[in-house]
Amino acid sequence: MTATALDSKIFQDMFTTPQMRQAFSDENRTRCYLDIEAALARVQARLGIIPQRAAEEIVRQCRIENIDFGKLKAQTERIGYPILGVVQQIVALCADGLGEWCHWGATTQDITDTATVMQMREALVLVEQDMEAIAAALAELARRHRDTPMAGRSNLQQAVPITFGFKAASLLAAMQRHRARLAELRPRVLVGEFAGAAGTLSSLGKDGLKVQSALMAELGLGEPEIAWHTVRDRIGEVGCFLGLVTGTLGKIAMDVKLLMQTEVAEVFEPFHAGRGSSSTMPQKRNPVSSLYIHATVALVRQHTAALLEAAVADHERSTGPWEIEWVALPEIFLLAAGALAQTRHLVSGLEVDAARMRANLDMTHGLIVSEAVMMGLGPHLGRQRAHDLVYDICRDVVRTGRPLLDLLAENAEITRHVDRAELARLTDPANYLGLAGEMVDRVLAREKKPGAD
Amino acid sequence: MTATALDSKIFQDMFTTPQMRQAFSDENRTRCYLDIEAALARVQARLGIIPQRAAEEIVRQCRIENIDFGKLKAQTERIGYPILGVVQQIVALCADGLGEWCHWGATTQDITDTATVMQMREALVLVEQDMEAIAAALAELARRHRDTPMAGRSNLQQAVPITFGFKAASLLAAMQRHRARLAELRPRVLVGEFAGAAGTLSSLGKDGLKVQSALMAELGLGEPEIAWHTVRDRIGEVGCFLGLVTGTLGKIAMDVKLLMQTEVAEVFEPFHAGRGSSSTMPQKRNPVSSLYIHATVALVRQHTAALLEAAVADHERSTGPWEIEWVALPEIFLLAAGALAQTRHLVSGLEVDAARMRANLDMTHGLIVSEAVMMGLGPHLGRQRAHDLVYDICRDVVRTGRPLLDLLAENAEITRHVDRAELARLTDPANYLGLAGEMVDRVLAREKKPGAD
Amino acid sequence: MTATALDSKIFQDMFTTPQMRQAFSDENRTRCYLDIEAALARVQARLGIIPQRAAEEIVRQCRIENIDFGKLKAQTERIGYPILGVVQQIVALCADGLGEWCHWGATTQDITDTATVMQMREALVLVEQDMEAIAAALAELARRHRDTPMAGRSNLQQAVPITFGFKAASLLAAMQRHRARLAELRPRVLVGEFAGAAGTLSSLGKDGLKVQSALMAELGLGEPEIAWHTVRDRIGEVGCFLGLVTGTLGKIAMDVKLLMQTEVAEVFEPFHAGRGSSSTMPQKRNPVSSLYIHATVALVRQHTAALLEAAVADHERSTGPWEIEWVALPEIFLLAAGALAQTRHLVSGLEVDAARMRANLDMTHGLIVSEAVMMGLGPHLGRQRAHDLVYDICRDVVRTGRPLLDLLAENAEITRHVDRAELARLTDPANYLGLAGEMVDRVLAREKKPGAD
Amino acid sequence: MTATALDSKIFQDMFTTPQMRQAFSDENRTRCYLDIEAALARVQARLGIIPQRAAEEIVRQCRIENIDFGKLKAQTERIGYPILGVVQQIVALCADGLGEWCHWGATTQDITDTATVMQMREALVLVEQDMEAIAAALAELARRHRDTPMAGRSNLQQAVPITFGFKAASLLAAMQRHRARLAELRPRVLVGEFAGAAGTLSSLGKDGLKVQSALMAELGLGEPEIAWHTVRDRIGEVGCFLGLVTGTLGKIAMDVKLLMQTEVAEVFEPFHAGRGSSSTMPQKRNPVSSLYIHATVALVRQHTAALLEAAVADHERSTGPWEIEWVALPEIFLLAAGALAQTRHLVSGLEVDAARMRANLDMTHGLIVSEAVMMGLGPHLGRQRAHDLVYDICRDVVRTGRPLLDLLAENAEITRHVDRAELARLTDPANYLGLAGEMVDRVLAREKKPGAD
Repeated sequence: MTATALDSKIFQDMFTTPQMRQAFSDENRTRCYLDIEAALARVQARLGIIPQRAAEEIVRQCRIENIDFGKLKAQTERIGYPILGVVQQIVALCADGLGEWCHWGATTQDITDTATVMQMREALVLVEQDMEAIAAALAELARRHRDTPMAGRSNLQQAVPITFGFKAASLLAAMQRHRARLAELRPRVLVGEFAGAAGTLSSLGKDGLKVQSALMAELGLGEPEIAWHTVRDRIGEVGCFLGLVTGTLGKIAMDVKLLMQTEVAEVFEPFHAGRGSSSTMPQKRNPVSSLYIHATVALVRQHTAALLEAAVADHERSTGPWEIEWVALPEIFLLAAGALAQTRHLVSGLEVDAARMRANLDMTHGLIVSEAVMMGLGPHLGRQRAHDLVYDICRDVVRTGRPLLDLLAENAEITRHVDRAELARLTDPANYLGLAGEMVDRVLAREKKPGAD
Repeated sequence: MTATALDSKIFQDMFTTPQMRQAFSDENRTRCYLDIEAALARVQARLGIIPQRAAEEIVRQCRIENIDFGKLKAQTERIGYPILGVVQQIVALCADGLGEWCHWGATTQDITDTATVMQMREALVLVEQDMEAIAAALAELARRHRDTPMAGRSNLQQAVPITFGFKAASLLAAMQRHRARLAELRPRVLVGEFAGAAGTLSSLGKDGLKVQSALMAELGLGEPEIAWHTVRDRIGEVGCFLGLVTGTLGKIAMDVKLLMQTEVAEVFEPFHAGRGSSSTMPQKRNPVSSLYIHATVALVRQHTAALLEAAVADHERSTGPWEIEWVALPEIFLLAAGALAQTRHLVSGLEVDAARMRANLDMTHGLIVSEAVMMGLGPHLGRQRAHDLVYDICRDVVRTGRPLLDLLAENAEITRHVDRAELARLTDPANYLGLAGEMVDRVLAREKKPGAD
Repeated sequence: MTATALDSKIFQDMFTTPQMRQAFSDENRTRCYLDIEAALARVQARLGIIPQRAAEEIVRQCRIENIDFGKLKAQTERIGYPILGVVQQIVALCADGLGEWCHWGATTQDITDTATVMQMREALVLVEQDMEAIAAALAELARRHRDTPMAGRSNLQQAVPITFGFKAASLLAAMQRHRARLAELRPRVLVGEFAGAAGTLSSLGKDGLKVQSALMAELGLGEPEIAWHTVRDRIGEVGCFLGLVTGTLGKIAMDVKLLMQTEVAEVFEPFHAGRGSSSTMPQKRNPVSSLYIHATVALVRQHTAALLEAAVADHERSTGPWEIEWVALPEIFLLAAGALAQTRHLVSGLEVDAARMRANLDMTHGLIVSEAVMMGLGPHLGRQRAHDLVYDICRDVVRTGRPLLDLLAENAEITRHVDRAELARLTDPANYLGLAGEMVDRVLAREKKPGAD
Repeated sequence: MTATALDSKIFQDMFTTPQMRQAFSDENRTRCYLDIEAALARVQARLGIIPQRAAEEIVRQCRIENIDFGKLKAQTERIGYPILGVVQQIVALCADGLGEWCHWGATTQDITDTATVMQMREALVLVEQDMEAIAAALAELARRHRDTPMAGRSNLQQAVPITFGFKAASLLAAMQRHRARLAELRPRVLVGEFAGAAGTLSSLGKDGLKVQSALMAELGLGEPEIAWHTVRDRIGEVGCFLGLVTGTLGKIAMDVKLLMQTEVAEVFEPFHAGRGSSSTMPQKRNPVSSLYIHATVALVRQHTAALLEAAVADHERSTGPWEIEWVALPEIFLLAAGALAQTRHLVSGLEVDAARMRANLDMTHGLIVSEAVMMGLGPHLGRQRAHDLVYDICRDVVRTGRPLLDLLAENAEITRHVDRAELARLTDPANYLGLAGEMVDRVLAREKKPGAD
């Protein structure tokens, strides 16, 4: 029986992914504990701190199959943390009392935090994979629709023409920035913890830093400059990163659902039989992924704030703030994974109706190129005069429903300077795309070529 | 395999409770769907809208055992919502095509929202039970420690004496206010939804309101004045209520953990063998419940914000905001249940060390009653003069470590007006408890007597 | 020089209102302090606690004009709180040392909290006025457009017809609930504070509760059952209330901006020359109020979370949490006032284009009434068969662009049961408004008649 | 008249700083607008796009003294944005209609966003200055107290000894990470905007990118790869950075206020006459800065969430999300500045009572070194046996109040292996500081030497 949407047997794959659930499962977390205890034993034997035989026995027993989860739950509820329970179970299994050397010099939080970092490492790989797939899909959309005109919209009003490729490229640029952020945070964040009860490694005498260094090498993690039991900016940074990435996904979903509106109908989520159908409204082609993205992104950002709060920890081992992370960190990754997977699905199979985009461009009878006309007439009439005149004529277009071109061509002040052919050129949206194409190229140039390494 | 802390097989009973998990389980939610579909069939048969035989068959099939959850997951992922899948499964089971009358005139959101309200009704009963147990425990502490002096603390400095009963009563007063809030919100919030695709009940012709009214009566829910598919203040209000209740719990946990500090040691969480022990620090008596309360409360308030965001819904059926609730509403209840259960445990078994409270009162050599002295001397010396003089003497106490009483008794300006006996009375913290007792009585008078109804 | 948008000399009246700024100005807050000190002196003289002459002198000096704000700033920075500074200024002005009786038995937080409650009382009147104006405007829209058909939209897809009055009424129902919430919270929240240093009223001996009671009567505030210096659910509740109210405003703004889209164009914010115009896009009719509502509502909900955090206060006078309120409480009221004022403006002058609503209803060639057709054919063909058949025909409509009515009338299975006239009736959106009108009436019946008291 | 705490004439310098208020003042923001318009004119003249004379006249008029703020407020309220108003005022001042060339090819959001980036650049310098001062003060504390023993505390219980220098160094390490984050984000974030109405630079023909490039060079800002009008991760990233930095400050304040408790009294905020004094409790030495840090940090993290929400922008120019930034971005900087300034003050003048630290270490009669004893006896008795034995003896210490050393020395199982002298060594907290000193050195080595570049 599960109670959260993220673990619901109905909803789990809509709000998150199996891979991310695996990364944050009890099994995987406990496996990380065991991997760390085993690595610690190996390292300490190598450094002559514990007997080699003890290390071998500990390593032999540190297998997930050996853990009784029911018992671990009871131990955890009693003690408040699961580590001691895991250690006790391993100790009990080790022959000849060799288990006494297990967890030597370590503290609960060392193992917990290091396991968390290992889970984050795994989770960030999943995040990166989806980020790259989204970037690739956006790049493909940018390339394919580099020159597909559509209405640019400002304040939900048609403003001036853009291309769909331009829209995709501006989102791709954000994914590129997220890629850079990820590269920067990894070495800072993927740093283990091994510092003992209050962070001073006092239980290991002079050998402490050697053990710490060897343990981190063994686990493939960065070495901490000093304990960070209650200095949690690393965790907060990951939360912020996911908040930033999903913010971009939220923008993508927002645009897609707006463009899918009955009255707009320019793009569509990928079609699957039955998906997005309605029990009572057979004609509908509902957005589905966009909804889940919108919702998960909203939840992610509040978890970011929660993780920032967890930074306000007391003294050397905190009294509550740490436990905020226990709930919020898995959830923010789970939710972000959901948003990423839905977005990947969305952008990879997005249907684009270029004809409808063109039709919508024409629905304002040319008003969408009023700026073009204004700019085009500016050199002849002066910018302010051009603005005022075009402004007035546009009002006539609105009032009469007649095409802008016709009304412009009837205006003597205008035709004194430009003829109808020139006006027709000025009022064709496809001629007012500015440097959209160049900007697309600029962003695409930052992507690796498909197929290249 | 589960991935959230709330559903973790290790942590689930530390961050939430089995009862609340049951209320928000897939099984219970789906059971609510079936109860509503069955009630709808019964009601519509009674009103002559669907055949009696159909209703009987539908009611007969609307059993949770009939639902194939694996299939439902696939259906839900395809459609985006689980209702149609449930209905299809029931329809398929009904003999003679009678299932066609199932879900008659209803829309997905009618069933989903009404089920949510039923879950909230159940969940609020659980919340209320813990609230009442906490109130009872606080009342008992207030009664028992009505006259137990302790240091009142301002800005984490000992300020003036209070009683522990006073502290408990001020928290009890908050629980009384929460009780009133719960009574007010129930009729407003426990209102079902039955309104059809866009809320107009168009699919049921003239009978719509009769069906709506009879259905709500059948389910024991309030009747909506109009559809609230996208007007979600009811859900937000519940989130706010839980945010307010848990805010008080957070304050309780804060005080307990501060009072449990090694250097203060005035109260302790209930003792259980091993609970709160440390793998490396055998002397420690760690807070445990306080930690979980602190963390869950921090998470609750972010979910409150998320539920408020869900109110910004679009048109007649929202595109994403609704799904925020799917995640946040179960979680806010689950987290609140955890905080409530931990607090109930905490306050019900709280150990109070009155002797240590008294000892701490004396640790400032009388400084804690400096206000008492100042107020006592005010009528003789004038308030400002009394303030300045006592202020100076207090500095001497700090500097010399000698008792305030001695220094006061050596000051001629003071002894001109009051003798040492009176000064001894003035400097006894137990004589400066003000109206703490009367205030405790005032709050306790609002509680039902234990044993009374 | 100001730095916040709320106090900006450019933006202040876009994000908030002059009236609310007045309520939370330094001047008004300090005036409240003085009113409380004066009331306290009057009350204490009446009860024989301080000399009548002292009270008269104190009351005489407690005028805002007497306060040197530059000096008060310096005092406040030194002490951390402004109250002592204000008292010192008044004491210095009082003749014959009578000022020594000023602030008798009070503590900083008594005055600060009571002043805050007085400001909230004033601010809630402003909130209520705008709430009532919005309710009245929504009621007028509901009445006027009770029978104006428009597309109901689900997932941003046209779903089934509704009326614009129905939309307005469903929002009005939320305002009615907010009205009830406000009535409930006022007596609970508008309660003063007078309790002394740690809440026990120790400085006033036996007279404390009499002074408290008389002071609250003098100020027109509720009497606290016990001190609430660090039990802050009252403040949190106000934050939640504003979060709930503005959530509804956010929904209103969302719908308006969606309906103002170039491609939809069904309603418009009130027109003022130049308002919502663009420097470069003369044809645009931008939403303006909707933007500010959207933004302020998003900010309000985060302040709600901040105010909930302020509840986690320590001991008898908190060390930081209280100061959260100092920033967040004024801002949440200021932002809410902005959202309310913009919404009031918006709904009071909303332009509704019923013709365009009707035209949009027809843009799907009848698909929007597919449910109507499905329900209408259900009794003849069976619900599932009707659903499947209509579903197929709707796909043909989408594919061919031909009217639904024509395709239905060409289908032999259908015309066996119903003729074209009946099909024409079934496919007229105005015939499929369900009980929209009745629901509007039901909500309107809860409003006072315009003109009645 | 101001209404926010941040602009309050009483509180402004407690919650923020004059320098940061200056950076976000109306005057500075408008000055940035003018600087951009002037730079644009210069650049466009240089490129031959507008007449040189026009540029000279525009530059001449683009002075803050020329702006009528009252008029600008009215213009802004009418239009919704201030840019057009500023441009109109400048245009009106320019001789010979040359103003018509002002703002050539630009759009409102180009100027607004670029000005925001310029303000952020200025604000980040202020942030950095305080960060560096805090780092320097922490480094000094770490150096001076490298070997000052104190109790390390876990779950607010004394756990094992640490040094105060170790505590300072772990915080310094966080400041070092923040320094690295700032260096990384600057080039990514300090990027201007110049893209025209929908981001395509359509109004400038082929010259658009040349103008963009030259303009950014002129302003010293990075060049955008593509328009980011509605792709707002840059702004969100700054919000996250401030959330992370202030999280560390919140932790510092938390520790200081806990260490200032009457019962702990190990460190104190810098003393100033009257600061932190109480009107009624003359003995108190209240934390002041810590309170403001706690409160501002709590507010910052909610603003971070708000800025992440602003990322969910629609289409090419957003309808509300952008305006979230208008309020939240200045406030998050203002609040962060307050937290930074208060922390700088706090750590620069922090008073450390090493004697009291030592006295507190002894208050548990040696229990704080129980781990040391356990580890010291482990090699002799086996880890588990040592743990259990010491655990039992510690309970005796708690029960009897006798020193741990005495009880250890009376235990035959122990004295069989180690004598009293060795036990005395084991139970001296100063001998159980682990590698605290080495870790301090490691962190300090990353700082530039004071005086070095």
